[in-house]
Amino acid sequence: MTALPVKNPKPAHITSEDLRDLARGAAFLGTGGGGDPYLGRLMAENAVRDFGMPEIISVNGLSDDAVVLTAAMVGAPTVMIEKCASGEDLELAVKRLGEITGRQPDVISSAEIGGANSLLPVIAAARLGLPLLDCDGMGRAFPEIQMVTFNIYGVSPTPAVVVNEHLETVVVETADPKRAEDIIRAVAIQMGLSVMFSAYSMTGREAKTTGVHGTLSIALDIGRTIRAGRKQGEPIRALLEYLRSTDYYKHCKVLSDGKIADLSRKTDKGWSIGHCVVSSLADPDNCLDITFRNEFLVARQNGRVVTIVPDMVCVVDSETAEPITVERLRYGQRVKVIGISCAPLLRTPEALSVVGPNEFGIEEPFQPIEEIHDDV
Amino acid sequence: MTALPVKNPKPAHITSEDLRDLARGAAFLGTGGGGDPYLGRLMAENAVRDFGMPEIISVNGLSDDAVVLTAAMVGAPTVMIEKCASGEDLELAVKRLGEITGRQPDVISSAEIGGANSLLPVIAAARLGLPLLDCDGMGRAFPEIQMVTFNIYGVSPTPAVVVNEHLETVVVETADPKRAEDIIRAVAIQMGLSVMFSAYSMTGREAKTTGVHGTLSIALDIGRTIRAGRKQGEPIRALLEYLRSTDYYKHCKVLSDGKIADLSRKTDKGWSIGHCVVSSLADPDNCLDITFRNEFLVARQNGRVVTIVPDMVCVVDSETAEPITVERLRYGQRVKVIGISCAPLLRTPEALSVVGPNEFGIEEPFQPIEEIHDDV
Repeated sequence: MTALPVKNPKPAHITSEDLRDLARGAAFLGTGGGGDPYLGRLMAENAVRDFGMPEIISVNGLSDDAVVLTAAMVGAPTVMIEKCASGEDLELAVKRLGEITGRQPDVISSAEIGGANSLLPVIAAARLGLPLLDCDGMGRAFPEIQMVTFNIYGVSPTPAVVVNEHLETVVVETADPKRAEDIIRAVAIQMGLSVMFSAYSMTGREAKTTGVHGTLSIALDIGRTIRAGRKQGEPIRALLEYLRSTDYYKHCKVLSDGKIADLSRKTDKGWSIGHCVVSSLADPDNCLDITFRNEFLVARQNGRVVTIVPDMVCVVDSETAEPITVERLRYGQRVKVIGISCAPLLRTPEALSVVGPNEFGIEEPFQPIEEIHDDV
Repeated sequence: MTALPVKNPKPAHITSEDLRDLARGAAFLGTGGGGDPYLGRLMAENAVRDFGMPEIISVNGLSDDAVVLTAAMVGAPTVMIEKCASGEDLELAVKRLGEITGRQPDVISSAEIGGANSLLPVIAAARLGLPLLDCDGMGRAFPEIQMVTFNIYGVSPTPAVVVNEHLETVVVETADPKRAEDIIRAVAIQMGLSVMFSAYSMTGREAKTTGVHGTLSIALDIGRTIRAGRKQGEPIRALLEYLRSTDYYKHCKVLSDGKIADLSRKTDKGWSIGHCVVSSLADPDNCLDITFRNEFLVARQNGRVVTIVPDMVCVVDSETAEPITVERLRYGQRVKVIGISCAPLLRTPEALSVVGPNEFGIEEPFQPIEEIHDDV
């Protein structure tokens, strides 16, 4: 594997004021999951106020033997919005992983891009006085901890440390990444279904070869683009234009412009599971059905797949382009649904065996969005 | 707390041939739980053949600053009889706990006396070339990991290490012993409900002041007594005579001589839960109802409590006095049920708040067996 180039390899110099844009952009790329951006931002603002803003460094600027750890939240987003983190818990998770591996981190990386899970690494980095890596392991969000390019291309998720609000810690170690997910899910459920998590201890070289580069910068750009687009009254058009200028997300289209006509959502086995139906405003009989498990997974128009995981289904407010996470879906919401190509690292045969439709119990095979549609 | 004296403070010199007696005696004191004695013995024999028999040392011979760790199986006995341990898993659990605490063990202790859980420390000690402590944390068996005198009198169960047959490890650390149980139970369920476990890292001084002394010797004596009693055709009479000569178990009586007329048992939330009814041979309408959760907890004769936890309800074969564990109960079995006083360390107010009837959802308060009956 060689690292994929990104459009803008320069590191992003995020200021505290940028956190709002980052939260919005990351929530968009989180495809419905990755945790609540509002809470993520509040927590990050708090940490930055107390500890200062961490420096953001590009993957290319990383030395091969640097120690990289990820920091994230694990659980059901429906629970996360009721059970917040203190920051101390996340810091403890990262420190304990450093102790256990005997390798304290030089830099913190996101494991996934998502509303909370792009902001929590900001908190960990700020509290520990470490830089933040412009990189993640998905270029989007996924519901399971082995569904990460670091794992797909050879980095073990464990030892992994789980910490809850009581600073209780659980350390999991297994050679089987899917078993790590199973055990950590059971632990997370027992610990209250919204817990802090540090895993994927790796070298700078491993982060370079297995990570999805530049996604923190892209999330920030998306947030800025939406904000700027609102001033011109066309945030969604601005957003699509920006996505088309990126390497990963350049194939994109609005799948539906409508309102949520049906919504079924439950918290089960540690996830937010369900589906929603978006009825087209132009033609109410034209329905888009979206299935989700923490993240939106597949969109079907009148039964036919129009975007399928690992390609991305994103739901935004029709007027403001504000990303809507699974736990914030409401009956009657006016939304636009956007289908987007994922990072190429997720489309290889190795990747599809971990994050492809089959892994989510979806019968249809993966088909790139640009092959499904002529106009993306 | 001061250590309670035991009748025979001399260390037991157990030979490989004694393992059969130890397994039988420990299964008896296990009050239906503590794991299968047959499998425990086979595993211990195997370890002793390969690694030699560990030396057994008395608690009084222990130096105050010695490092003591416990080794045990956690799970549902119904599962344990289908899913055996290799020994490597148990050894790894103890070693990892030593690494995490930075204090490698000088001696291995049982956490509970029970058919498997008195034999597994033999395996750990044999494999690690360490002595075995003539002591445990219950003087019987209990279903939850905080239900241990070490915990009741101030030793933390965590950090605790769980290891399964794939040598996957989970390390749990919490200040709350009941939470340790909750988390480890969830982990054990996810890891297959029969896992190896090392916990209660403590000093020799702590083992002296918080442990139930001499229980390995007593278990061995019980096993020997039953075997010798069989030759005289009266193993149960011999057993009762021996128990009356001990400090802990001296109040004892046969509660019922009958057959199992009803049995309800399920594996639920990680335990073997249920109850059985023993119908008296002399008067079939005279029924003894026994409730269990891994261990027998309370026996009621026609609705009235005749022995209640932490006092001990033990079920043995009517003829051979072979102890019968919860998972080996069968409809129609001819059994004698024996009620016995527990170790005094379990009867203090501190102890009853952890192992008393209320902790098992039993409404009746604890009442010592010698106060319930005039003839014990």
